[in-house]
Amino acid sequence: MEPAAAPRGISIIVGGSATSPKGFVAGATYAGIKTPGPGKLDLGILASEAPARVAAVFTRSSVQGAPVVISRAHARAGRADAVIVNAGISNVANGTQGVRDAEEMCRLAAAKLGIEESRVLVGSTGVIGQPLPMQKIREGVPQIDLRAEGGHAFARAIMTTDTHPKTMAAQFRAGGRAYTIGAVAKGVGMIHPDMATMFCFVTTDAPVALPYLRATFRATVNDSLNMISVDGDTSTSDTAAIFANGAAGGPSITVHSPGAAAFERALRFVCTSMAMMLARDGEGAEKLIEVRIEGAETDAEARAAARTITASPLVKTAVHGSDANWGRVLMAIGRSGARIDLHRARLWLGDTLVYRGKPVAFDAGAASEQLRHEKVVLRAHLGVGSAAATAWGCDLTPEYVHINADYTT
Amino acid sequence: MEPAAAPRGISIIVGGSATSPKGFVAGATYAGIKTPGPGKLDLGILASEAPARVAAVFTRSSVQGAPVVISRAHARAGRADAVIVNAGISNVANGTQGVRDAEEMCRLAAAKLGIEESRVLVGSTGVIGQPLPMQKIREGVPQIDLRAEGGHAFARAIMTTDTHPKTMAAQFRAGGRAYTIGAVAKGVGMIHPDMATMFCFVTTDAPVALPYLRATFRATVNDSLNMISVDGDTSTSDTAAIFANGAAGGPSITVHSPGAAAFERALRFVCTSMAMMLARDGEGAEKLIEVRIEGAETDAEARAAARTITASPLVKTAVHGSDANWGRVLMAIGRSGARIDLHRARLWLGDTLVYRGKPVAFDAGAASEQLRHEKVVLRAHLGVGSAAATAWGCDLTPEYVHINADYTT
Repeated sequence: MEPAAAPRGISIIVGGSATSPKGFVAGATYAGIKTPGPGKLDLGILASEAPARVAAVFTRSSVQGAPVVISRAHARAGRADAVIVNAGISNVANGTQGVRDAEEMCRLAAAKLGIEESRVLVGSTGVIGQPLPMQKIREGVPQIDLRAEGGHAFARAIMTTDTHPKTMAAQFRAGGRAYTIGAVAKGVGMIHPDMATMFCFVTTDAPVALPYLRATFRATVNDSLNMISVDGDTSTSDTAAIFANGAAGGPSITVHSPGAAAFERALRFVCTSMAMMLARDGEGAEKLIEVRIEGAETDAEARAAARTITASPLVKTAVHGSDANWGRVLMAIGRSGARIDLHRARLWLGDTLVYRGKPVAFDAGAASEQLRHEKVVLRAHLGVGSAAATAWGCDLTPEYVHINADYTT
Repeated sequence: MEPAAAPRGISIIVGGSATSPKGFVAGATYAGIKTPGPGKLDLGILASEAPARVAAVFTRSSVQGAPVVISRAHARAGRADAVIVNAGISNVANGTQGVRDAEEMCRLAAAKLGIEESRVLVGSTGVIGQPLPMQKIREGVPQIDLRAEGGHAFARAIMTTDTHPKTMAAQFRAGGRAYTIGAVAKGVGMIHPDMATMFCFVTTDAPVALPYLRATFRATVNDSLNMISVDGDTSTSDTAAIFANGAAGGPSITVHSPGAAAFERALRFVCTSMAMMLARDGEGAEKLIEVRIEGAETDAEARAAARTITASPLVKTAVHGSDANWGRVLMAIGRSGARIDLHRARLWLGDTLVYRGKPVAFDAGAASEQLRHEKVVLRAHLGVGSAAATAWGCDLTPEYVHINADYTT
C-alpha cells in the first residue's frame, strides 16, 4: 500500500527509506537465523554516521524481551546512533543468557561502527523462547555492508510474517532548510501495541532538541502506531525509536522554533503512514479497516472505543464477509466502556448512515458494497461529547488462522 | 460434552434439565423468528409454579439490550418466577420501541402464567438492531405448552449458533433432604462475559434465603461463567439468573445453615459444567482449553492472566494447530498485566514442563500430542505469590471466520 497523500508542505520521497535522511547508513545479511529462501535477509544494522539524539518507547507488557531491557537502558540518556536487529528468533524468556546475548549484539555493532556499546539499541523478533544462535550473529555482522542506499535491505532483514517491506521517507521545510524523515517498520502478528508497535525506527537529519524530540515522538506514536491492532495480542518486543542526527544543519529545533509545526506534521504523516501499512499487512489480512470515533466524552474513551472496534473478532469477520452487521460495532463500543447515548448516537458503514438514535432503513446492498473496498471506513458518533480518535486494523481471515496454527512446526 | 465428574455428595441427574427441580415447568414453540428448519424452536418460557426468589447478574457493557434493562428492574426486588426468551433477533439498539417490546414480552408471559408482569424476566438473542417481530411473538406465546418435561425444548429454543442444547441437573443433600439444581445456557459467539455470560438460567427447589442466594450466585458466576472466553467480545445481552422456589421443602438455607456448603458445592459444579460446555461449543471450536494459573500475586492478576490466555488469538491458533509454541502463553501473561518473575516462573503444556526459569528441553512431539486432545490444559506458575484461577476457552479455527463472515447475509 502506498502512503496516504501527503499534507501540504510535505513531499514524499519516491523510493525513500530510513537512510534517505543525510548521514544515515544501513545494511543487512543472511546469517542463517530464518529458514533459508531466495533473497532472504535476517540481520541488519541502521546507523547514523554522526552522533544522534534518540527518543524511544517500548512495550508495556509485564513480560519484556532482553533486547527491550537493554535498549531501554541505552536510550535513557537520549544518545544513541544505531540499532542492530535480527529476525527469526526473538530473544524473550531466555533467562540471563538472553541478556548477555542482547548485550553482545550491541557490542558487535559498536565494534563495527567504532562507537560505545551504550550508543547501540538492539531488537530481536520471531519465535519466543529459543536461544539466539550467537555464533551465526558473530559471523554475520562483519558481512553487513553499511551504505547510504542500505535502507531497503534493512527493511527486508527485519521482516517476519510481513508480506512486504515497510519503509518510506518524506521531506519538510523549516527555517528555510529542507529536512528529511525516514522510517522503517515490521509487523504483522501479535499487534496490539501498548506503547509502541513491534519495530518502527524513524530517522531524521533535522537537529531536533532532545526534550522536544521525546515529547513529540511519544505523542505522535500514541496517535499512530499505538492505534493499530491486528489480533489484539501485545508483543513482548514492541520498540519504536527515532534517531535525529542534525546532519542537514540549521539551528536546534525546539517546541518554540518556527519549524516545530512542520516537523510535527511531517513526523505525524510518516508515523501514521507506517501504522496504516502495518495494519493493512496484518497476518492474513485482505482489507484495511479505519475506525473514526467522534462525539466521545473523553479522549481516552474515544481511543478505547476506536481500538476495541479494530480488535473485535466479530467486527473483523463481518468486514471480511462484507456483511453490513453494524450491531457488532455498537457491541464493541459497549465493551470498550466508552459512554454512549443510544438515543443520540450515529453510525456509518463507509458513507452509509445505518443508525441515528435507532436503526435507519438503508440499502444493504450499497452498504455491503462499501465493505468490499480494500480500505473500509467505520465511523461512529457517540452522542455524548466532542472527543475524537482514529484507529486502524484489518479483517480476520481463515488465512490468519492458517498462518498461526503452525508457526513453529 | 458431558459434565465433568461430580464431586463427592453431588449426583448428576441423567437427562436432567432446568425443569428437573420440583415445581418448575417450561415449554417452547417455533414462532418464525429464526430462519425455518426441521425441529427448530425460537420462543420459550421457563417458570416456577410457586413464587420464587431470584438473583441475577447482567452484562457490564455500556451498550445494553432492552431486555437487560427490563430484567434488571424486575430482578431488583429478588422476586421473579419466570423468564421468556426468544432467539433469532436480539432486542438491542431498537430505541424506545425496543423497551416497549421487552415489556410486552413480560406481559404476554405474565398473562399466560397468571402472575404480575414484574415477576417475569426477559431475554432476546440474535442479530442486533433489527426490530422484534412482535406479532409473531404474540401469536407464539399461546402455542407454548408448559410442562415439567419442557426443559429440553426450552434449551433448544434459546440456541443461536450453538451446535447443541446445554442443560443439566444435579442433586445435593442438605438437612436430610434431597434438593435439585438445574441449569440451561446458550452461547456461543460474542463470548467474553463481563459479569455473566450470554444466557444461563439456573433453577433450584431448595429454599435458599435471598441475601445468601444473591451473594453465592454472584461469587459462583464470577469463578465459572465469567471465566470463559470464545472470542473476546462481550455481549450486550449477557444475563445469568437463578430461581429458587423452595418446592422441595425444609428450612430456609442461609450462610449459617449446615446445608450451605453442600448448596454452594452443587451450584459451583453446575455453573462450572455449564461454563465448560459453553466454551467447548464456542463458534467453530474443536477443542476446549483449560488454563490454570498459580503463584500469582493477587486473585485479580491470576484471573486476568488466565482470561487473557484464553482470549489470545495467537494461543488459540497455536492450540488449533497443536503447535507447542509456549512463548505465546508467556506473551499473553505479559499483556494481561499480571506480575511474573521470569526467573521463577514455570509453564506446562498438558503434563509437559516447558519452562522453568528458562526454556526446558522437552520432547516437542510429546508436547504437541498433549495439544491434540479434545481438552487441552495450559498451566502456568507465575512465581510471585500464591493466588490461583482457572479459565476456559476454545481454539480459533477457520470455521469461526466462516460462521461470522456472513452471519446476517
